[in-house]
Amino acid sequence: MDPDAVAKAFVEHYYTTFDANRAGLANLYQDGSMLTFEGQKIQGSQSIVAKLTSLPFQQCQHSITTVDCQPSGAGGMLVFVSGTLQLAGEQHALKFSQVII
Amino acid sequence: MDPDAVAKAFVEHYYTTFDANRAGLANLYQDGSMLTFEGQKIQGSQSIVAKLTSLPFQQCQHSITTVDCQPSGAGGMLVFVSGTLQLAGEQHALKFSQVII
Repeated sequence: MDPDAVAKAFVEHYYTTFDANRAGLANLYQDGSMLTFEGQKIQGSQSIVAKLTSLPFQQCQHSITTVDCQPSGAGGMLVFVSGTLQLAGEQHALKFSQVII
Repeated sequence: MDPDAVAKAFVEHYYTTFDANRAGLANLYQDGSMLTFEGQKIQGSQSIVAKLTSLPFQQCQHSITTVDCQPSGAGGMLVFVSGTLQLAGEQHALKFSQVII
């Protein structure tokens, strides 16, 4: 399978899960995973999901604008995502970008 | 030395070089390096610098807004940068973001 297609499918799955069932993101992280969120480093699937589920908004909708990826390390992949984040009750969408490795 | 400080120093050096002497970026890439630029994958120091020096603007000025980093792989580091890019003769600055590994 084309690595770009795998990356896009993963990104789609990640944000669909984020918007529909944030706690379900636990399956997409491992104990060795690290999330750096606005400067704060958080390690491990459980801590990462605790952080993401405690963000100060409930309903949200991510729209993906770009997905760029390239190989990184042994069988790894570096994926760069940008897009917009619409929060319930807010008039304007926020811009976001995220890197997934 | 604090890894965050190393990352910030590298980022500062990278963009100072980009703005002052783009060809000098060759020293910051290796033959195995890959640049993904707006969806295009470019491999190797020489090809990467050829791409960057052929961008359709001459004078530019990067201003860094955020630098986030975390360890990645054996002694590696994942660095996420966002900021603005002011081009000579343009009224408005562009927003940019870049990942360095």
